[in-house]
Amino acid sequence: MSNELSKGELTRREIVKKAAPIFNRKGYEGTSLSDLMQATGLQKGGIYRHFTSKQQLAGEAFDYPWEKAVTGRQAGVNDVPNSVQRLKKMIDNFVEKRAGLVPGGCPLMNTAVESDDGNAHLRARAKKALESWTARLAKIAAEGIARREINARIKPLDLAQLIISSLEGALLLSRLENSNAPLRNIQLHLHHHLDNSVRS
Amino acid sequence: MSNELSKGELTRREIVKKAAPIFNRKGYEGTSLSDLMQATGLQKGGIYRHFTSKQQLAGEAFDYPWEKAVTGRQAGVNDVPNSVQRLKKMIDNFVEKRAGLVPGGCPLMNTAVESDDGNAHLRARAKKALESWTARLAKIAAEGIARREINARIKPLDLAQLIISSLEGALLLSRLENSNAPLRNIQLHLHHHLDNSVRS
Repeated sequence: MSNELSKGELTRREIVKKAAPIFNRKGYEGTSLSDLMQATGLQKGGIYRHFTSKQQLAGEAFDYPWEKAVTGRQAGVNDVPNSVQRLKKMIDNFVEKRAGLVPGGCPLMNTAVESDDGNAHLRARAKKALESWTARLAKIAAEGIARREINARIKPLDLAQLIISSLEGALLLSRLENSNAPLRNIQLHLHHHLDNSVRS
Repeated sequence: MSNELSKGELTRREIVKKAAPIFNRKGYEGTSLSDLMQATGLQKGGIYRHFTSKQQLAGEAFDYPWEKAVTGRQAGVNDVPNSVQRLKKMIDNFVEKRAGLVPGGCPLMNTAVESDDGNAHLRARAKKALESWTARLAKIAAEGIARREINARIKPLDLAQLIISSLEGALLLSRLENSNAPLRNIQLHLHHHLDNSVRS
């Protein structure tokens, strides 16, 4: 058996990669077949040979930028020994490492807002992404409590949720104002909260 | 001169009121002419006699739920004498008074997310709404500093922005998880922040 990807699988991945920024910017409803044909350079048949529906393609086109975002947020985190500092590093990555991401903002926010009154398939995908991000932050907080770096009365899931809410809301404002100020403001605030109310 | 609205003006307002929840749920791109015809019970000509374009209608259909939201957030605020308590009351209203709002979530978030890569007209509308909300909170904070109820090192605009970021992000998570928990979590957090780091 060969480890190389088949030609079909390569084309499939290429379609997802090229469709991802379109879906992230325009949303599921706003993305037309002609947008997808233009982005991929393929005809309708060439695209839908690889996907059973627009929905299936949109789902995979959600995962692609999301995985990029997750990787960016994790950068260097495991090298930081202290758990409060680890949480800060994840916050800093969210605020500062936005350059390499798929254009169009946070795929979680975009998909959550668009799908919250309709598309159950995409909504489920966004929900799962939120749960895994929450779990990752909560795990660091729980480890911090076990190591007595974090105050034992902190609830790891609540702290994780608080960090994500704050970052996502600040990103919304930063995008609307076309300024980093709201993200920088929340970064300082969360650092202050971690130092003054979370650290043991 | 009569104070009564003309029949045309009444119809116009009725169209805006009926179109508002459609735009708020489905977004500008996702709202079709047939959605608007169904919601209003009018034909295309009956709708566009009153509006020059879908964009004009969408703009007014943004203002309608936004004004409802603003009114809800202000409820009882002026009866509270202390400025820290006033800020808490605005936070509580955002978290607790969601029942009477136009369905589909926060019009600011919906419009910001959908328009941030395209529709300049709607984007400008959402930006203006954010600025007026920020100014309202910042004014309370500035009054609090003048009355020595709030620490003089607090920057009113930063505090306002922090509160809005936190609430909007928590609303996003609450809608995605279909649970009030993220909003309740941020409410407690902001109260704690106001009591411990903002109050003088």
